[in-house]
Amino acid sequence: MTGFVSFVGSGPGDPELLTLKAVDRMKRADAILFDDLSSGPILAHAGRGADLVGVGKRAGRPSPKQDHVSRLLVDYAKTGARVVRLKSGDGGMFGRLEEELIALREAGIDYEIIPGIPSACAAAAAAGIPLTRRLTARRVQFVTGHDVSGALPEDLNLAALADPLATTVVFMGKRTFPRLADLLTGAGLPPDTPALLAESVSTPDQQLMRSTVAGLAERFANDPGPAPALILYGALATAS
Amino acid sequence: MTGFVSFVGSGPGDPELLTLKAVDRMKRADAILFDDLSSGPILAHAGRGADLVGVGKRAGRPSPKQDHVSRLLVDYAKTGARVVRLKSGDGGMFGRLEEELIALREAGIDYEIIPGIPSACAAAAAAGIPLTRRLTARRVQFVTGHDVSGALPEDLNLAALADPLATTVVFMGKRTFPRLADLLTGAGLPPDTPALLAESVSTPDQQLMRSTVAGLAERFANDPGPAPALILYGALATAS
Repeated sequence: MTGFVSFVGSGPGDPELLTLKAVDRMKRADAILFDDLSSGPILAHAGRGADLVGVGKRAGRPSPKQDHVSRLLVDYAKTGARVVRLKSGDGGMFGRLEEELIALREAGIDYEIIPGIPSACAAAAAAGIPLTRRLTARRVQFVTGHDVSGALPEDLNLAALADPLATTVVFMGKRTFPRLADLLTGAGLPPDTPALLAESVSTPDQQLMRSTVAGLAERFANDPGPAPALILYGALATAS
Repeated sequence: MTGFVSFVGSGPGDPELLTLKAVDRMKRADAILFDDLSSGPILAHAGRGADLVGVGKRAGRPSPKQDHVSRLLVDYAKTGARVVRLKSGDGGMFGRLEEELIALREAGIDYEIIPGIPSACAAAAAAGIPLTRRLTARRVQFVTGHDVSGALPEDLNLAALADPLATTVVFMGKRTFPRLADLLTGAGLPPDTPALLAESVSTPDQQLMRSTVAGLAERFANDPGPAPALILYGALATAS
């Protein structure tokens, strides 16, 4: 008898931003594998007898290797367990979902994917701004601020990222933002383009700061700080 | 005594993809203003005495003017009602949220914004694909396929949209996709770039079709069909 894995997007952190389907799967799970970012109050929805297994990755701290997580997932499912794999935000966005899907397929284990609220959508909602605007912001883009080594990716599409008619959200990009901001302004983005820093979105530690691309670059050059953060820039970033 | 408006992202259509917070607000609402796309089974979460007010917009059918919707929202709130304004997917993405926020601010009415599952995330989850991949798909972008007049927007950033290292999701773009595909391939995107058509995502009418950019362009040139749809293209579009 083989188990079943539900990949569950846990949203940005507020347990009230879980979907009904996510809560249902957590209540019925035999084991829940979670990252640090999706832990805490969210786990209160777990059923009483569920194993709660932290496989956390957090910026700046060592974390289990990805193949270790995949193996753990397969091992739990092979015991016949109903497994929930929690991923913060939406698992399909910068959640390294694919590696784990492949491991399950290779092991012949069935799974489902339940989408979650992307932290970028929650950040915009918390700040009271839309991500799109008719005529002047018809494209939204989400990018990651670091590659495997933690550096700014080298193959950035600057024509895309320096476009003043887009809203851009940078995930995990505080450390590399000073360098990115240089590249963006070099590619024509005005340094005073509105920018929003959103830390620990939807949690009691939430911090929102309205600034500019140049302003945030200067801030992070001194001290990026440990909190998980999104940087949103474009005309809408400080719309209200 | 003034009312209060909760803008609630209702997700892609499956009522189980509502957040706990969305359900809470619907249960306590005196009035719920909804678009066609977010109606149906989702409204079963409404409290017994709530007014259910359809202000639907649907591709190809006439719809109430936006300022009429904003006025209705203000009028309901002025009666002291707790109003829920349901918006399909996430209200901040192509939901024309800003017009309604401005109307409420001008009328001095308080509101909150509750994010929802973007239909693009639900489409990827249903198709079993991630939206990002390390090294080869580190940017996701969401664009609308039509401007105010229903035509393809003229100020498209083709360097962004024809980038093979991005995953692109086109909202409301079936009718204009043949023209967009011409522009994309003219800008260097291979015509055989994988593409996914996702219609009525997460509802009983859900249809997923794996194809290519050229394949979908040909299909829609003949008959785009009435169903609400997303087009997703890029290396990941048919990943599994």
